Amino acid sequence: MKSSLDSLPDALRGLIGQGVEAIDTPALVVDLDVTMRNMQRMAEFAAKHRVRLRPHAKMHKSAAFAKLQLQAGATGLCTQTVAEAEALVAAGVNDVFISNEVLSVPKLRRVAALAHQLKQRGGQLAIAVDSELGLDRLAQAMQLTRASIDVFVEVDIGQGRCGVAPGEPAVALVRQLTQRSSSLRYAGLHAYHGGAQHLRTPQARRRTIVQAAALLDDTRRQLAAADLAPPLITGAGTGTFAIEAASGLWGELQPGSYLFMDADYLANERDTAQPQFEPALFVKSQIVSVGADRAVCDAGHKSHAIDSGLPQVLPLPGQPRLAFANGGDEHGILRPLDTDDGVLSALPALGETVWLIPGHCDPTVNLHDHLIVVRGGLIGGQVETVVPVARGTW
Amino acid sequence: MKSSLDSLPDALRGLIGQGVEAIDTPALVVDLDVTMRNMQRMAEFAAKHRVRLRPHAKMHKSAAFAKLQLQAGATGLCTQTVAEAEALVAAGVNDVFISNEVLSVPKLRRVAALAHQLKQRGGQLAIAVDSELGLDRLAQAMQLTRASIDVFVEVDIGQGRCGVAPGEPAVALVRQLTQRSSSLRYAGLHAYHGGAQHLRTPQARRRTIVQAAALLDDTRRQLAAADLAPPLITGAGTGTFAIEAASGLWGELQPGSYLFMDADYLANERDTAQPQFEPALFVKSQIVSVGADRAVCDAGHKSHAIDSGLPQVLPLPGQPRLAFANGGDEHGILRPLDTDDGVLSALPALGETVWLIPGHCDPTVNLHDHLIVVRGGLIGGQVETVVPVARGTW
Repeated sequence: MKSSLDSLPDALRGLIGQGVEAIDTPALVVDLDVTMRNMQRMAEFAAKHRVRLRPHAKMHKSAAFAKLQLQAGATGLCTQTVAEAEALVAAGVNDVFISNEVLSVPKLRRVAALAHQLKQRGGQLAIAVDSELGLDRLAQAMQLTRASIDVFVEVDIGQGRCGVAPGEPAVALVRQLTQRSSSLRYAGLHAYHGGAQHLRTPQARRRTIVQAAALLDDTRRQLAAADLAPPLITGAGTGTFAIEAASGLWGELQPGSYLFMDADYLANERDTAQPQFEPALFVKSQIVSVGADRAVCDAGHKSHAIDSGLPQVLPLPGQPRLAFANGGDEHGILRPLDTDDGVLSALPALGETVWLIPGHCDPTVNLHDHLIVVRGGLIGGQVETVVPVARGTW
Repeated sequence: MKSSLDSLPDALRGLIGQGVEAIDTPALVVDLDVTMRNMQRMAEFAAKHRVRLRPHAKMHKSAAFAKLQLQAGATGLCTQTVAEAEALVAAGVNDVFISNEVLSVPKLRRVAALAHQLKQRGGQLAIAVDSELGLDRLAQAMQLTRASIDVFVEVDIGQGRCGVAPGEPAVALVRQLTQRSSSLRYAGLHAYHGGAQHLRTPQARRRTIVQAAALLDDTRRQLAAADLAPPLITGAGTGTFAIEAASGLWGELQPGSYLFMDADYLANERDTAQPQFEPALFVKSQIVSVGADRAVCDAGHKSHAIDSGLPQVLPLPGQPRLAFANGGDEHGILRPLDTDDGVLSALPALGETVWLIPGHCDPTVNLHDHLIVVRGGLIGGQVETVVPVARGTW
């Protein structure tokens, strides 16, 4: 795995080749062996089901991991922000879809510049739009270049966030798109149901996506009847992609979290139509205080995102299982999970390492400037490389 | 307000002197006029009550704001991480207390180097310790320098996180400290009750701090009886500092959030013994999608922390009040708060600016690389400067 080490702080560059025990805490650590297995399983699924795979880089925000995914057969990458797209393009990724609405005029100028840059080297930029004003502003920004941009009209298939309503409103917006500027190319529909991804049972996820697919199929038929059949429908996430793949509607899948996984996805009851993914992303933490009934580690809300729940403590062989309780921004409070154990004997000692599986991988990665990538396991392994994160929201 | 602009990205440097409307979204914006009022009110309170004020820099993670606080009379700054302390010292702050336990040997080497650096220029570093192992490792690291470090023994006065138990265990640890290396100077006790800060009524906060003070006073008496009277007791936060100040026990206050405030602190019923603080920290966001019953803005979990609740939408004169609902990592979903209004007419339009008051200031600041500091108000004001955030947890 390649990544430029030029901009790394000395302390991080010095870690490369050292044992995992040399990583100071709190730090975000990626198990590359597990990551490669997850990547391979997803790539095999897409190949077997003859759908394109466009993994979502909003999760890892990392050109180094994007390139691994391309090597494993991905068509291109999705991003959610312009800054993520810029980071990927700067590192040589040639096919990027910004799967989000951009209304900011300064950002749309950056989008146009990026489209121009990609065009010059034979690549292609795409973006999602769900409004006429979005089309207007994008077309205006594209006038500054001689490049074109692929536009996917986002359709709201039940999530209730972005996206034009399915059916007639979607047809009307696609018609607007095709009649607008020649620099905007109608590439198809973007249809993602985020709310379905973490429904706990495969049955509930299937029910939701089947409903979403019915709305989408109706829209597709109306578009076809208007001679506006979508060239491609893109969407799906780590929780549901097997259902979208089987529907015959989606031609491209956008899962992101499968690569690293997190406690929230691991809490889903698995759909056996999907491959099994394993946790590859960990916060390395250590015990900084021990009280009568608790041990306190040095990882809190500033080390891991808690929007999808608190982290889980990775059970290590021969050690008692621990529950993580909220200790604020810089601390986590650990207590034995199995209360029939003697409390004191079950607590980890001062200075001891604990490994946390974050509740939600995407915003956890966004909290860190670097991912420390290890091979050979969390115990006994060594640091393979350190890669920067294209943090932030600009 | 001074801050080095050398390391700023061009897009941010170019903002300085421009109107607030030129700030792209999502961005974290500080209203400097409000900040200065908050700062002045806190400084006046400390002066009037003859307690030292050592504001907590874990909130703003910014040398520029630390220096303003020092100019307004603060004794020094608290930090929660070694990296925050390094950022302040590098910018010229001479009196820093790391109010947290550090067990990591590499970090303790950095602590020792920082103590040495400060000593050479007549400053002083302090740190909290709550264990014998903490004392051992700190003393060992300090052997590398000829400097000394002030040590505050942290006492758990009811929060149940870090801190040695009050009474005899605290006395034993202080005794250990005074008999250890001559490089560790017994500076007093660190006693902070984080859990009391957001109890909603002044009565509940007062009850909790009065109980905490009783434990602390008992410990102080036992220490005095052992000829180990604490030179100083430091602690308190934005929710309770008037109670600690009135107790006669605490000689130094550590509030942080008062400077910027947040929705969680604003939800506290005010203790009239405290000055009134106003919100000074905002996420500037804009509407990127509008549906039949909602408008969607471009600020989600990656723009603001939600550990203390979702942000509030700043009500603007003549506009309908909006409720913020979770839209995931990059989006917020806005709906009218007053449902007797017609829904459609009350929604903001595509591209319109909305200002959010984050739920919790500290981890929200930590999500951003820069604070954009404005004067003259959010509407009609201009960008005064842009300051870097010493992000992260190392």
